[in-house]
Amino acid sequence: MKAVRVHEYDENVSPGSLHVEEVDEPEIEGPLDVIVRIGGAGLCRTDIHVVEGQWAPLNDPDGTLLPYVLGHENAGWVEEVGSAVTNVEVGDAVILHPLITCGLCRACRAGNDMHCIAGVFPGLDSDGGMADLLKTNARAVMKLPEGVEPKDVAAHADAGLTAYHAVKKSVSILHPGTRAVVIGAGGGLGHIGLQCLKAMTPAEIIVVDALDPALELARDWGADQTVKVDGGHVDTVLEMTDGLGAEAVLDFVVENGAIDDGVQMLQPAGDYYVIGYGQNLNIPAIEIIGNEINFIGNLVGTYNDLVELMTLQAQGKVTLHTSTYPLDAADDAMQDLNSGNLQGRGILVPEGAAA
Amino acid sequence: MKAVRVHEYDENVSPGSLHVEEVDEPEIEGPLDVIVRIGGAGLCRTDIHVVEGQWAPLNDPDGTLLPYVLGHENAGWVEEVGSAVTNVEVGDAVILHPLITCGLCRACRAGNDMHCIAGVFPGLDSDGGMADLLKTNARAVMKLPEGVEPKDVAAHADAGLTAYHAVKKSVSILHPGTRAVVIGAGGGLGHIGLQCLKAMTPAEIIVVDALDPALELARDWGADQTVKVDGGHVDTVLEMTDGLGAEAVLDFVVENGAIDDGVQMLQPAGDYYVIGYGQNLNIPAIEIIGNEINFIGNLVGTYNDLVELMTLQAQGKVTLHTSTYPLDAADDAMQDLNSGNLQGRGILVPEGAAA
Amino acid sequence: MKAVRVHEYDENVSPGSLHVEEVDEPEIEGPLDVIVRIGGAGLCRTDIHVVEGQWAPLNDPDGTLLPYVLGHENAGWVEEVGSAVTNVEVGDAVILHPLITCGLCRACRAGNDMHCIAGVFPGLDSDGGMADLLKTNARAVMKLPEGVEPKDVAAHADAGLTAYHAVKKSVSILHPGTRAVVIGAGGGLGHIGLQCLKAMTPAEIIVVDALDPALELARDWGADQTVKVDGGHVDTVLEMTDGLGAEAVLDFVVENGAIDDGVQMLQPAGDYYVIGYGQNLNIPAIEIIGNEINFIGNLVGTYNDLVELMTLQAQGKVTLHTSTYPLDAADDAMQDLNSGNLQGRGILVPEGAAA
Amino acid sequence: MKAVRVHEYDENVSPGSLHVEEVDEPEIEGPLDVIVRIGGAGLCRTDIHVVEGQWAPLNDPDGTLLPYVLGHENAGWVEEVGSAVTNVEVGDAVILHPLITCGLCRACRAGNDMHCIAGVFPGLDSDGGMADLLKTNARAVMKLPEGVEPKDVAAHADAGLTAYHAVKKSVSILHPGTRAVVIGAGGGLGHIGLQCLKAMTPAEIIVVDALDPALELARDWGADQTVKVDGGHVDTVLEMTDGLGAEAVLDFVVENGAIDDGVQMLQPAGDYYVIGYGQNLNIPAIEIIGNEINFIGNLVGTYNDLVELMTLQAQGKVTLHTSTYPLDAADDAMQDLNSGNLQGRGILVPEGAAA
Repeated sequence: MKAVRVHEYDENVSPGSLHVEEVDEPEIEGPLDVIVRIGGAGLCRTDIHVVEGQWAPLNDPDGTLLPYVLGHENAGWVEEVGSAVTNVEVGDAVILHPLITCGLCRACRAGNDMHCIAGVFPGLDSDGGMADLLKTNARAVMKLPEGVEPKDVAAHADAGLTAYHAVKKSVSILHPGTRAVVIGAGGGLGHIGLQCLKAMTPAEIIVVDALDPALELARDWGADQTVKVDGGHVDTVLEMTDGLGAEAVLDFVVENGAIDDGVQMLQPAGDYYVIGYGQNLNIPAIEIIGNEINFIGNLVGTYNDLVELMTLQAQGKVTLHTSTYPLDAADDAMQDLNSGNLQGRGILVPEGAAA
Repeated sequence: MKAVRVHEYDENVSPGSLHVEEVDEPEIEGPLDVIVRIGGAGLCRTDIHVVEGQWAPLNDPDGTLLPYVLGHENAGWVEEVGSAVTNVEVGDAVILHPLITCGLCRACRAGNDMHCIAGVFPGLDSDGGMADLLKTNARAVMKLPEGVEPKDVAAHADAGLTAYHAVKKSVSILHPGTRAVVIGAGGGLGHIGLQCLKAMTPAEIIVVDALDPALELARDWGADQTVKVDGGHVDTVLEMTDGLGAEAVLDFVVENGAIDDGVQMLQPAGDYYVIGYGQNLNIPAIEIIGNEINFIGNLVGTYNDLVELMTLQAQGKVTLHTSTYPLDAADDAMQDLNSGNLQGRGILVPEGAAA
Repeated sequence: MKAVRVHEYDENVSPGSLHVEEVDEPEIEGPLDVIVRIGGAGLCRTDIHVVEGQWAPLNDPDGTLLPYVLGHENAGWVEEVGSAVTNVEVGDAVILHPLITCGLCRACRAGNDMHCIAGVFPGLDSDGGMADLLKTNARAVMKLPEGVEPKDVAAHADAGLTAYHAVKKSVSILHPGTRAVVIGAGGGLGHIGLQCLKAMTPAEIIVVDALDPALELARDWGADQTVKVDGGHVDTVLEMTDGLGAEAVLDFVVENGAIDDGVQMLQPAGDYYVIGYGQNLNIPAIEIIGNEINFIGNLVGTYNDLVELMTLQAQGKVTLHTSTYPLDAADDAMQDLNSGNLQGRGILVPEGAAA
Repeated sequence: MKAVRVHEYDENVSPGSLHVEEVDEPEIEGPLDVIVRIGGAGLCRTDIHVVEGQWAPLNDPDGTLLPYVLGHENAGWVEEVGSAVTNVEVGDAVILHPLITCGLCRACRAGNDMHCIAGVFPGLDSDGGMADLLKTNARAVMKLPEGVEPKDVAAHADAGLTAYHAVKKSVSILHPGTRAVVIGAGGGLGHIGLQCLKAMTPAEIIVVDALDPALELARDWGADQTVKVDGGHVDTVLEMTDGLGAEAVLDFVVENGAIDDGVQMLQPAGDYYVIGYGQNLNIPAIEIIGNEINFIGNLVGTYNDLVELMTLQAQGKVTLHTSTYPLDAADDAMQDLNSGNLQGRGILVPEGAAA
């Protein structure tokens, strides 16, 4: 089958970093295995960070991972199932929770799929879904409602799920009268997070972004206020928040100084949600204790989070902004993403996937 | 009256940094004012950090604070009250919540005294309790049970209250089978935090400290395991925690690399309580999101926290380790603290304070 | 001044139960007292229950309360303040938290104003606001935004506050895909609760009511589904909820069998919010444990809840449905309420109150 | 194999209600099935209630259940496993979570095993463990530590698990200075609940029981105060709790008026944990809303709860009080339980089960 692979790390993410080539098809080995024919695979900043080698200490400590298939944000149709699979049938349209989990460890038994002690993360630490087929397991597949196309929701499998998961944590502190600052609404996660905030909380939403088109879209998606990154943006947010800062900051960027600015926008006793990544959190402890602020890490959400997010999608409360590329154009898509020329989430579609 | 004042910042905290001198007595001005005759005033690493000037950007932004009286950890007897005070009478033995609060702002109305928007913190941003008398208000005073001496519990007013507050936040995640790492048990806060953990949670407690006497005392106070800081201490803690790290790390030090080590002792999805301060939290965001860990800031606790802590004290579940000095010896006490020669919490006692 | 008083309990609530008569004006006695000129006083089913004597065991155990002034839902303008009041000035338009609280007990210090151990509830256990003037204290008054008329928001002081308080408790369980059943949307509380649910949660809202006009209004206020009480209503709700029942039932009625029906609409592990009252909760314990369901009692909310509710009002997310009566017509208003002829919340307006 | 079956409901639970007889052995059918050789099966008041027919509306609505094998509290050794079972091997000593769950529904994915929509409860709605063999599945089995005998811990599988689950819910409200009333410490659940409270909270524990031996044992297990049911017991508890009542009441009885007394021992804003059953909860709604109290239903706990409870057992913080009977003497054991002559939890041991 056809697949998109990385052969070597390249911190410049040069053209040609991604190779579209023939690889062996996956096979059912265990009774709970599920093979999915991919309908759409999302392209993510994390794919850039993988190519850069930023993930290597975590996902490739022994240096044996390459070459491997990218793609951790997948949806498609069930192609084949193991003998003990009962929750899906061949032909079902499905979206995939990004992890393959055991179901038996403490984390799985508490619903925290993303902390499964035996968890495998296709596209990050094993072959992913930028290919014709992907192997996962019964616990990872969620049936799509009638009429929903896999490529139209694939971006929820990771981008949406992560954004939703972070927003859900913030619900308990975002009562009427509070303000939530969203840093970065133009990217794949931010625009979903913004819509989730709107659907799930009565907070006033302030979107901070460097680009005018992103701010315009943010207004359409429900931002109450928008602030351009122009050097005076911290002061602008402080003015909008009684000089105190916001109760919550959701930082979907965490690169290029975003977190340094963001911390200044947070009020005492506030929560800072670290969602994007790329730079260090570097802050004097005296500020953390003096203001009694918290930094909340966010990975992808749980399987139940994914079900809830798909409900918001079905209710029309969350809309995805995507651009599709043929699987063969994966490298072009990554170049577009890296240079800021990709509007919305990029979705790779294998030839013949569309019905 | 006699008081201990700082006249200038000195990052070396040289002998002579503290001046014991005559100042005017405070006077009742408002109907809710309370003047307390000090029975004991605790000496804290924060006093060192104040002298160093580390707090100046926060508590003295205009450079107009000096000279002023130190002492933010106070207990004594009510000397005089304003016309509208109903909860204490002259002569009552009291411990003081460290902040003077308004009682009317949102934070006060939610019980979060330490986030009062009009809060004053005697000893930090106004004249404190290393003196014969201190002015506070009705909301800050808590009556002591019959027979309890102010100087014996003064250290709970800030050190104990901060430790208790952080431990209380950790209760919800410390179910049976979990492990809590306590970094720094020898100082004023750590030894109380350790005892609170023992009284309030079923977690296994692992104490990490650089000094053997502190580790010995930790065992007496209920530590299940002790680990000396010897270069191999991170690995030792990982071995004690199934290679995963602990569910919670309570860092009472946050200086000299403690937090860098501590983060390595934390398991995925774990909570890191920042209680001490002195260095930066400096960590790649990819580790925060990849492991989905949280950093929880901790300031002093609420008034209700103080009541709860005094209950543990009354029940014999928490015992203070203190060394007393005459108020006149304040500068010696600070030198002892700074050089590591002060055992337990140092308590300054004004002449004639003991009944 | 003029006031509306009850002289004797009457379980039939006969015409003439309420007496409009001259009484002495209240006077400032303590430094934190506040006297308010009433702009509007809400009429509540609780007033009926007081006249019936249903509250007597709780608010009049010694039988010494009568005659007294009704009215526990008040807004107006500050008329006079005690010497230590700093948060309002004479002339300020204010809404009143229904309790006069001490600010010093554990409950007050935790923000739970309604559980103040020294709390006084004007209109329930002391003279209330169906009068020209009412005495309360500084902790109970909240300034209204410019341009907001007291009589237009008075109903929030108890009806709105209680509904908001219950809804706020439900937020943590009402994630996307859940269903909240609202029993009774036509009354003073239900129509506010419904709007709060809409503003604060993504739950699907199912309104159950006996009257068609109430169901029609419910649709305008945001109900996703409406169900008429017609004998088949329990089955209808079960059909709407996959045969399982809803995750939450908010019962604003709790009379005439409402709670017996409501419990059947609740799914296992669900929460039943008891908000109205009038009958007994009478259910076999085996059903409580077999389904592991919870019954959550609800009194009025906190002061901060009131602030949050007024924010929703200011944002246009909550609209009150009221009918005004002159204070002199109090007895007519109560007869209208008791006979079901009062549309929305009844508001009594003293002569000359409107600016 | 030998098994203990019920043939007909008998509200008097007459001698001879239980039949020890030969039945077919269970067989592995699905890939995740596990067959366990029983080492000990606990006898529970629920077994009496099943024989009485009290459960019939819930577990036998069609009247087709009888005859069937009792026993929902089981431990033993793995006898045979299905092809996809990976977490246990033949010969492993195991304790059984009481439900057979699907692992795929929302409840399972959130860790709430007891609310699995496809859950089967052997001993309640299908053949149970009072037999030589029991069929369950991979998700229900938990390996015992080396050296722990199944019959010594079997009572944790339901009695312990339910008690632990209820206590765990109470942890968040039982801070230092609070009081927890335990109603019924002599039965199988109460004595475990009492020890869990001691291990997991700093609350003062007040035990209320009708029998002196139970009160004596309660003191050994850590009760701070004991109160005999003698007519004045409600007043005694109120005296012990400042006239207000306790913050939490854990009612392990809920029969013979226990809950009517218990509600009077609860303070405003308190939580009443319904754990036992037998009578109705019958209380005026005005008391629920006037005092803003909650009634919390409790079924068995989660799988993770069981792991945590076994940790407390291993740490020596919880000790079981049991009496063993041969499986053949099941009917005698039930008569002893019903007449109050059974000390501690009764455990039925099949012939040849003991190593």
